[in-house]
Amino acid sequence: MSERLTLYSYWRSSAAYRVRIALNLKMLPYDQVPVHLVNNGGEQHDPVFHELNPQELVPVLIDGRRVVRQSLAIVEYLDEAYDGAMKLLPPMIRDRARVRALAQLIACDVHPLNNLRVMQYLERELAADAEQRQRWTQHWIREGLRAFEEMLVEHPSTGRYCEGDSPGLADICLIPQVYNAHRFRVDLTPYPTIARIEQACLELPAFDTARPENQPDVPGTA
Amino acid sequence: MSERLTLYSYWRSSAAYRVRIALNLKMLPYDQVPVHLVNNGGEQHDPVFHELNPQELVPVLIDGRRVVRQSLAIVEYLDEAYDGAMKLLPPMIRDRARVRALAQLIACDVHPLNNLRVMQYLERELAADAEQRQRWTQHWIREGLRAFEEMLVEHPSTGRYCEGDSPGLADICLIPQVYNAHRFRVDLTPYPTIARIEQACLELPAFDTARPENQPDVPGTA
Repeated sequence: MSERLTLYSYWRSSAAYRVRIALNLKMLPYDQVPVHLVNNGGEQHDPVFHELNPQELVPVLIDGRRVVRQSLAIVEYLDEAYDGAMKLLPPMIRDRARVRALAQLIACDVHPLNNLRVMQYLERELAADAEQRQRWTQHWIREGLRAFEEMLVEHPSTGRYCEGDSPGLADICLIPQVYNAHRFRVDLTPYPTIARIEQACLELPAFDTARPENQPDVPGTA
Repeated sequence: MSERLTLYSYWRSSAAYRVRIALNLKMLPYDQVPVHLVNNGGEQHDPVFHELNPQELVPVLIDGRRVVRQSLAIVEYLDEAYDGAMKLLPPMIRDRARVRALAQLIACDVHPLNNLRVMQYLERELAADAEQRQRWTQHWIREGLRAFEEMLVEHPSTGRYCEGDSPGLADICLIPQVYNAHRFRVDLTPYPTIARIEQACLELPAFDTARPENQPDVPGTA
């Protein structure tokens, strides 16, 4: 729609990471507006950002006058609205269903449980200490990756990437989740297919430049 | 694909409730196989069901030789594979993005936090008592419905239903979540648009017959 897209993002948000990968894979240029989720009590609670997203969560994509929310909805929007360099969802109905199920396994059943706001609630309301919170996070990541691995192994259309030999929506969700797995010290040995696909994805510039460490708002090491 | 669809379901699962509404709206006949999530430690952990879904969650849709998992993926699959009586997603790209964002607000950011397996973890691992678990559930429902209400009020395409005057994917997610809101005694007064849409939906037989109380596996009152 517009000539240039704008993404409200946070370097460590794995939902924003998904959208950055999608924009890169489609080779759509975009401007990034960092929303710091921790500083000043969280800039996502600012009234100006609240107007953009009443959920007070990143990412939000701005395309001209359109405001698109929710990372999976944004990725599908980009895929439908822009031809770009490639398609992120496969053309066949049955393959799309499989890819969406893999994506939603991560986006519905793993990531939301380990989100910042949930960690804050566990600490504040249930007095969960750092070790309990770490176990919580690891538990849901392991549950999800175990099932994801099985669903990759069982299916003949798993290829170099989650679906065939072209990266797409499932990989877009998997890689940021694996980033979190590393961050929270989840051993990936039980998930060799996931580990192989991670390596294949991170060899692609679209994934590499989308990594949290490569974002403009990553904290300095000074 | 097949002549008759099969849905693995549980009467009180709000993810299964979504798919039941979708099947009814499209007027697709289906057989229902109940999976009791509590009895015998949970029938979803049975090895035979595990083959159907390594996540050990309902719903699962069987269409001939195809196994479709994840409720939103199932609804989009049904909409793409079958014309049925109506379309569940709107034809315009921008409207689809809005509807998917509303659906994912519920399916990603509310429902998974209040799922049975999460409640069990809170009790078992964090010793959260019944009152703490109730507060947890209410908190995430209120957070979600507050944002959902705002996103309905702000947008000109909200109609009799979430998107215009025809029920669809967003309503399919909203109504089961509102069912849970009632169940966990969340006051709906702050969300008048949601309450109005709930009433409009429950007047439709497709929503009414999909209600938990109208399922074959609802426990008897004897």
